[in-house]
Amino acid sequence: MIKVGIVGGTGYTGVELLRLLALHPEVDLVAITSRGEAGTLVADMFPSLRGKVSLKFVDPKDAPLDRCDVVFFATPNGIAMQQTRQLLDAGVRVVDLAADFRIQDVGVWEKWYGMTHVAPDLVAEAVYGLPEVNREAIRHARLVANPGCYPTAVQLGLLPLIEAGCVDIDHLVADCKSGVSGAGRKAETHILFAEASDNFKAYAVAGHRHLPEIRQGFARAAGREVGLTFVPHLTPLIRGIHATLYARITREEDFQAIYERRFASEPFIDVLPPKSHPETRSVRASNTCRVALHRPQGGDTLVVLSVIDNLTKGAAGQAVQNMNLMFGLDECIGLSHVPVLP
Amino acid sequence: MIKVGIVGGTGYTGVELLRLLALHPEVDLVAITSRGEAGTLVADMFPSLRGKVSLKFVDPKDAPLDRCDVVFFATPNGIAMQQTRQLLDAGVRVVDLAADFRIQDVGVWEKWYGMTHVAPDLVAEAVYGLPEVNREAIRHARLVANPGCYPTAVQLGLLPLIEAGCVDIDHLVADCKSGVSGAGRKAETHILFAEASDNFKAYAVAGHRHLPEIRQGFARAAGREVGLTFVPHLTPLIRGIHATLYARITREEDFQAIYERRFASEPFIDVLPPKSHPETRSVRASNTCRVALHRPQGGDTLVVLSVIDNLTKGAAGQAVQNMNLMFGLDECIGLSHVPVLP
Amino acid sequence: MIKVGIVGGTGYTGVELLRLLALHPEVDLVAITSRGEAGTLVADMFPSLRGKVSLKFVDPKDAPLDRCDVVFFATPNGIAMQQTRQLLDAGVRVVDLAADFRIQDVGVWEKWYGMTHVAPDLVAEAVYGLPEVNREAIRHARLVANPGCYPTAVQLGLLPLIEAGCVDIDHLVADCKSGVSGAGRKAETHILFAEASDNFKAYAVAGHRHLPEIRQGFARAAGREVGLTFVPHLTPLIRGIHATLYARITREEDFQAIYERRFASEPFIDVLPPKSHPETRSVRASNTCRVALHRPQGGDTLVVLSVIDNLTKGAAGQAVQNMNLMFGLDECIGLSHVPVLP
Amino acid sequence: MIKVGIVGGTGYTGVELLRLLALHPEVDLVAITSRGEAGTLVADMFPSLRGKVSLKFVDPKDAPLDRCDVVFFATPNGIAMQQTRQLLDAGVRVVDLAADFRIQDVGVWEKWYGMTHVAPDLVAEAVYGLPEVNREAIRHARLVANPGCYPTAVQLGLLPLIEAGCVDIDHLVADCKSGVSGAGRKAETHILFAEASDNFKAYAVAGHRHLPEIRQGFARAAGREVGLTFVPHLTPLIRGIHATLYARITREEDFQAIYERRFASEPFIDVLPPKSHPETRSVRASNTCRVALHRPQGGDTLVVLSVIDNLTKGAAGQAVQNMNLMFGLDECIGLSHVPVLP
Repeated sequence: MIKVGIVGGTGYTGVELLRLLALHPEVDLVAITSRGEAGTLVADMFPSLRGKVSLKFVDPKDAPLDRCDVVFFATPNGIAMQQTRQLLDAGVRVVDLAADFRIQDVGVWEKWYGMTHVAPDLVAEAVYGLPEVNREAIRHARLVANPGCYPTAVQLGLLPLIEAGCVDIDHLVADCKSGVSGAGRKAETHILFAEASDNFKAYAVAGHRHLPEIRQGFARAAGREVGLTFVPHLTPLIRGIHATLYARITREEDFQAIYERRFASEPFIDVLPPKSHPETRSVRASNTCRVALHRPQGGDTLVVLSVIDNLTKGAAGQAVQNMNLMFGLDECIGLSHVPVLP
Repeated sequence: MIKVGIVGGTGYTGVELLRLLALHPEVDLVAITSRGEAGTLVADMFPSLRGKVSLKFVDPKDAPLDRCDVVFFATPNGIAMQQTRQLLDAGVRVVDLAADFRIQDVGVWEKWYGMTHVAPDLVAEAVYGLPEVNREAIRHARLVANPGCYPTAVQLGLLPLIEAGCVDIDHLVADCKSGVSGAGRKAETHILFAEASDNFKAYAVAGHRHLPEIRQGFARAAGREVGLTFVPHLTPLIRGIHATLYARITREEDFQAIYERRFASEPFIDVLPPKSHPETRSVRASNTCRVALHRPQGGDTLVVLSVIDNLTKGAAGQAVQNMNLMFGLDECIGLSHVPVLP
Repeated sequence: MIKVGIVGGTGYTGVELLRLLALHPEVDLVAITSRGEAGTLVADMFPSLRGKVSLKFVDPKDAPLDRCDVVFFATPNGIAMQQTRQLLDAGVRVVDLAADFRIQDVGVWEKWYGMTHVAPDLVAEAVYGLPEVNREAIRHARLVANPGCYPTAVQLGLLPLIEAGCVDIDHLVADCKSGVSGAGRKAETHILFAEASDNFKAYAVAGHRHLPEIRQGFARAAGREVGLTFVPHLTPLIRGIHATLYARITREEDFQAIYERRFASEPFIDVLPPKSHPETRSVRASNTCRVALHRPQGGDTLVVLSVIDNLTKGAAGQAVQNMNLMFGLDECIGLSHVPVLP
Repeated sequence: MIKVGIVGGTGYTGVELLRLLALHPEVDLVAITSRGEAGTLVADMFPSLRGKVSLKFVDPKDAPLDRCDVVFFATPNGIAMQQTRQLLDAGVRVVDLAADFRIQDVGVWEKWYGMTHVAPDLVAEAVYGLPEVNREAIRHARLVANPGCYPTAVQLGLLPLIEAGCVDIDHLVADCKSGVSGAGRKAETHILFAEASDNFKAYAVAGHRHLPEIRQGFARAAGREVGLTFVPHLTPLIRGIHATLYARITREEDFQAIYERRFASEPFIDVLPPKSHPETRSVRASNTCRVALHRPQGGDTLVVLSVIDNLTKGAAGQAVQNMNLMFGLDECIGLSHVPVLP
């Protein structure tokens, strides 16, 4: 059994980790920390976990995290970078669900996240936890930077074309729609029900923090910088990301075959038949990404549709997938959920 | 392995059965019938099942239902009563998720359902599949009448008081709110998104078919007829029933203790601490019923709050629970889902 | 033209007042105050008002409120009681949309609202602004206490029966469902979209502040105290209250006729035909209350359904209706909106 | 007073027309037709209209349409083209809210709409009813083809750039999100609440009927054919379209100034400050279109955000605007609604 600790268990990625780990047959939940809720039963805050999780939140300073095999950080940005070294030194492996170790260029990270990085050497060591790209490195990693939700959907949607070198990588467009849980469980006005329900809007069009993360992934695949216009939208869904991706063809290929080959052995990527329209609910509460390819009117523009559950494949599910890889388990253990539809 | 057939797999109770049975370790899905969709892959109609269910819908006349161990009817009312005898004769056990065998008084059934019953003797044999009431009988039943969604929530909420004989059973009130999936996957105008979203209304106040079913259950417990005002409401949720139940006290008791004792060994009933407010999402996509008890201002009226997922404990989950009992399995097998929150 | 000031214009009742008053032909909007947003264009905070309202929020201390003809308080509880005397002394009439002047028994108010009242004499002077009960008094009032949203829906739904003296007033039940805007525009976790969407729950079953207000109204009509169980529920709607009201018959009457007579000349009350099911959207964004009467199975219990828009008839619309009365205008001016459906 | 008839009043554009026309000071509603609902009070089908519209639906053959001044067709495609000639011959002016007269190239129309056009000469006469483009022609038109909802949002969003000739018109992208009311009030499974709520998907990526309509409008402005990738998405909103539009810059300009000049005197177009994020609710139930311009990271791609209410500016509101123009009224009469927020 893998002894697991969670730092910061009161947000949505935290409760989603608990939903997945509570039934994971190889996991022993050891500690869940929260400053504000120390002493509270986890199941009192999240009644969905009654009978499933018996732990109380503990204050970080009292948590036996250094006796865990792995610690997940489900914290705001800037926390994991302060605490990871001590855990690694104690032989604990770390999966950070925040952004602290996602971007290799520390200067870029500091610009977009507005803080000074306190552990640049760990950034260099960290493995970007997108199994479909870095599976082998993840198996041996001490420290995994779990990808962001938009970057997961967008990279899984466009990497096959970029790797194949058959589209114009200077003018990619990613028009992305996210459920409101992607904004976290924070008391902020703009994500109130009466604001976000029956309403739709773009946000952060000038620049969103996931932009450099996506560009980094694309640059690795392409061998050079890419041009990407990324527009996120707040959508009245609880869970789900739908990425609508536009790429201009530069070389004719059997594009559908490219996707099918690229993801043939991927347990969590489902390439739909051509001209399909994946729905976000078709992956709700599961770790699956579904991708479909279109070429409208046979023109020169490909449209790729990519859907994930932002809390599962876009966060906690992918983190568990990474843990499974890090500990030599079957990658799919604890992640076999059938999506909840309707 | 239990060989399972499903008659009528294209509605919401059908796809929910498939979600649960696809991962049930003791079940072998043999056949799913549909007249209209024969030949279609189940996963083409419900992409959430891609990679989980490989069957095609088959025409009822071609389905090897008589070679199954158990057949679930997820059909409109009036179908199961026509086909059950043949299956029972072939040694197949039957769970009907529709209403054909729920009401022992065939005359009452015919009045509320507007048809002539073709198998009254089977009604007499059928066991009402509420495990919290009929567990032993279910274990030995050939034919189980799976309860309605409202009757499940209301009976689990009020039976402890009725059995204890401490409330006025002539003037019970059940004010119930159901998610729209309770109306089924039928192309009807009033349940369109643009009609039912951001809207709330009562319906069938003059009389709903679940009323005689609830009264029957209460009468069994009380030993005489009861008086019940039952008002269902259509609520902009996909899944979930919230029953708000009002009963006037006739004898002082430790009411909380009555509930805790009554449900002490029930795996799917969660009695919350006094004065709790259970949310429908706290049971979303799970087979759990959560119940909480209030006595506002210490007055003479008890308020019981009872929540279930109408498609799970209110339909398909309870059907699987009944199947587990009928085949001598652990009652909880295949039903351990953690509710999906958020 | 009536010179109007609004204190506290940044919440939902504030923006709803602005929606209504911006097109009111007899109103001149003079000042809208906000401590936090002083200097901000109202239309920058609420873009729906671009081109309709050109004012900026002003700090309360700079606002020329004493030169207004009427000031609306759209503030949290406890503000209006501090500022009303000065305005009245300056000859300004006041409509308080909060609860400061709603409850005549100051001791009761202080218990439920948890503060000491600083102007008990003004409570005595204040007129409770339910025009269907107090129309004449409102015409001459200097100070109107605008009713709460639940009290409006519940009183309009049950007063005809209580006034007629034909139901058991010791055991009334009001099962009420409110849209989330009723909780205000406050950054609180439980009303986030990802918490309140696709979810349903009761709250404050032990006791809600609107309970004493409803009881006061009923007691006035009945001439004695009444017994009421009031259970509010948070419903995934933006706007709308649906009250489902239960009363036991003590004397046979033509109940439908009682309602039709009682509300025959009321411009904003629509008594539906018997056995109707009013939907909340049928009054969305309008000042109308629709009421329907049921007697299920001809039993001894009446079920009354009452719907309003909590922000309009339940708050700002009723406040404008009161203003119209106070200034001798046609009661309906500025309130002729056709409900928005779908 | 303008005598108005409506053909096909039972859909969403019909009831929206009624919402607007019921309070229009210059309109006398004469007849509303419906085959299926003849004899039913309009307000029985749409209780939001109780007290506002006293008409009954009449069978088309009994309707005195030829005595109207103007007839609106709120019918499925293919109806207006059959009945318009007779009305025009009787001196009645016609506004068709369906697509029969929108596309000048009858061959293109027949291909996309799958029927033979029975009145090609009327297509030639019809004026495309986008006042921001064809105001003068509309004033004198006998027959106005009211634009589609997507075409309204997309054209208003991109025409300024196309007219200015400063973007690459061979590779425009329109990623559009529509509320579910855009699919009409038809009993179809995919738009049920339990299917469309908490769900997001693209549809008709291979080709949507509004594509040729948008291309026609762009070609008129550009003087030649344009290349456009148009992807519509079904969004869990009741009302609202959000168009996210991408255009590559070919010549530097003050793009914001182009929009402000282009729409300076347009009463229903609101150009927001640069870098704004218009929300669909900011135009809910109003005839306004709000547009905002972005140039992310100062790159070569412009992102234009355009929002309308699909039933108002995208259908019935624009139809009333056209009627106002056709009859020499102030263009804004009856259309001054403040958007409903929240």
